[in-house]
Amino acid sequence: METIYNFSAGPAMLPKEVLQQAHDEMLDWHGSGMSVMEMSHRGKEFMSIAENAQQDLRELVNIPQHYKILFLQGGASSQFAMVPMNLLRGKTKADYVNTGQWSAKAIEEARRYCTVNVAASSAEIGFIYIPGQNQWHLDPEAAYLHYTSNETIDGVEFQWIPESRDNIPLVVDMSSDILSRPLDITRFGLIYAGAQKNLGPAGLVLVIVREDLLGTPLPGTPTLFDYQVHARNNSMYNTPPTYAIYITGLVFKWLKRQGGLAAMEKINLAKADLLYRSIDSTDFYHCPVAKADRSRMNVPFTLKNPALDDEFLKQAEMNGLLQLKGHRSVGGMRASIYNAMPLKGVEKLVAFMNAFADRYA
Amino acid sequence: METIYNFSAGPAMLPKEVLQQAHDEMLDWHGSGMSVMEMSHRGKEFMSIAENAQQDLRELVNIPQHYKILFLQGGASSQFAMVPMNLLRGKTKADYVNTGQWSAKAIEEARRYCTVNVAASSAEIGFIYIPGQNQWHLDPEAAYLHYTSNETIDGVEFQWIPESRDNIPLVVDMSSDILSRPLDITRFGLIYAGAQKNLGPAGLVLVIVREDLLGTPLPGTPTLFDYQVHARNNSMYNTPPTYAIYITGLVFKWLKRQGGLAAMEKINLAKADLLYRSIDSTDFYHCPVAKADRSRMNVPFTLKNPALDDEFLKQAEMNGLLQLKGHRSVGGMRASIYNAMPLKGVEKLVAFMNAFADRYA
Repeated sequence: METIYNFSAGPAMLPKEVLQQAHDEMLDWHGSGMSVMEMSHRGKEFMSIAENAQQDLRELVNIPQHYKILFLQGGASSQFAMVPMNLLRGKTKADYVNTGQWSAKAIEEARRYCTVNVAASSAEIGFIYIPGQNQWHLDPEAAYLHYTSNETIDGVEFQWIPESRDNIPLVVDMSSDILSRPLDITRFGLIYAGAQKNLGPAGLVLVIVREDLLGTPLPGTPTLFDYQVHARNNSMYNTPPTYAIYITGLVFKWLKRQGGLAAMEKINLAKADLLYRSIDSTDFYHCPVAKADRSRMNVPFTLKNPALDDEFLKQAEMNGLLQLKGHRSVGGMRASIYNAMPLKGVEKLVAFMNAFADRYA
Repeated sequence: METIYNFSAGPAMLPKEVLQQAHDEMLDWHGSGMSVMEMSHRGKEFMSIAENAQQDLRELVNIPQHYKILFLQGGASSQFAMVPMNLLRGKTKADYVNTGQWSAKAIEEARRYCTVNVAASSAEIGFIYIPGQNQWHLDPEAAYLHYTSNETIDGVEFQWIPESRDNIPLVVDMSSDILSRPLDITRFGLIYAGAQKNLGPAGLVLVIVREDLLGTPLPGTPTLFDYQVHARNNSMYNTPPTYAIYITGLVFKWLKRQGGLAAMEKINLAKADLLYRSIDSTDFYHCPVAKADRSRMNVPFTLKNPALDDEFLKQAEMNGLLQLKGHRSVGGMRASIYNAMPLKGVEKLVAFMNAFADRYA
């Protein structure tokens, strides 16, 4: 059958090699006679899978030992509460930068636990750019500074890491661009990322946290929302999402085989450049996002004539180009081109878009 | 290769047919060109998977429409906090029955949110029986009554459903015996069950809740810990653990093909009877649990001579009988024989145990 390219914003494409290996090992992992799904999380087989995943991630990102790697459940949405519940550490305020719909959700949840200072926002003009840091108003009493490195819906992405004041930890929701480029973990207090975009299947959220920030959760924090509990138990306080960890571990190994994060950045840049250049080369398509802040992962665009939207989607699907419909809140189209999307997929999309524009212009 | 029987307490064996189907569909689900792991949770393909899973469960258990079925994350441990955070509904007390280590964990977490009345406990004599309801001391001001229908570690199981006072909802942790026998859902206000024993892979927790109980969470409850949020969004408020829901849906279809819950009860009774009769027939083995309260799912037993434990486990493993080591807190052995364990597996275990006893008695 024809190769399908799936531009879903998440859950999203996984590397073919990873799915092939999962297929091959489904009934019998390494001669154990068991599927990974059937393994006790405390047995030697799964322990080795989890340890390998952690070790491979440490190598890929070069994570020092004083950062803990946690494999948790609940997605990034759980972190919107866990971050304030754990990182306020006696303070009552936190800085948030509002650059899109996911930032806004994080802010809304944080307001249940502290006074949020919105240090900067691009909400008024529809989240189409990222305010430069010289325009931010940070609160000197903030417990931490939170931002969202890539906005899946709005298609804006930080191409730079914000500066944080002395001892104010920088916290980032990196769900949709983690491992898409090299990452200097030492700039951050805490990174979190739902797995279902660049890491693996839904149902897993990765947290990387500097260990000195742990241990003072708000009163009333559920035990499962206390990072320290998970850190002390190496993510095995309760049964972890074992199969999602296994698949994510296979993705880490795949990333290493691709040459690591520097190599991924090159491919991701090539993919994004190709697509944005194509969009910008005609007024048949339009991307509203400021060029300097455009996401390499999620490319939103509109057709000049929205009456053609349905036809565009229908013909795209007939060509094996799936899930291009934009988020319902912004309309138009969106192509999500995470790590697992090969350059070929973007080339095919661009060829289709050019042909469609030629026909209907 | 030789057939393996995996007696893990969870994650645990899954039906071979289910794993075979997951294997066959891994790279291309129903001609979609996608793995289920790659599907947008809001796309038509996954929506049909989730709806089918819900519908099949409704049929299997005969769940009326005023009960909501929720597919959540965080395992049963998340429910230890979610239950009090949602079901206190203005009250400050709750009744708990303490019949094992999982009951005790639920109680410990509930104490963060309310005054727990331990209505009955078998802790003093090591959780080897279930106190009859005539010995329970219920608090007239309790918001709900919580118990654990099967204790995975201690091997005690309720063979009856407790009576609850007027309008006091009965809440049960059914993680390790759900769908192992017919279930009268109308007796309960809320049922929860981690998936990784009788339902599917780790990373999913099933909640079935009477809808009139929802809507008044404690202040400070994280949005993701509010049942009402998930009920209103049909478990799609945030990205659900899609692959775990898919596998669990395959297990529901497998259960229907087996003849449903009445048929499962027959098989489970046969398996448990065979194993307990074998243990009781010799003083080489011993099960400490009172006969009336013995679990059909988790069978703990000890060897008269604990010096033989390692040899027993080693020889069992050589015979393809895996994960028989008892929980570290109780020692000895434990055979978990959930729905997916075929009668043949128990027969093979019993034959091995008899031969081992003959040799070393």
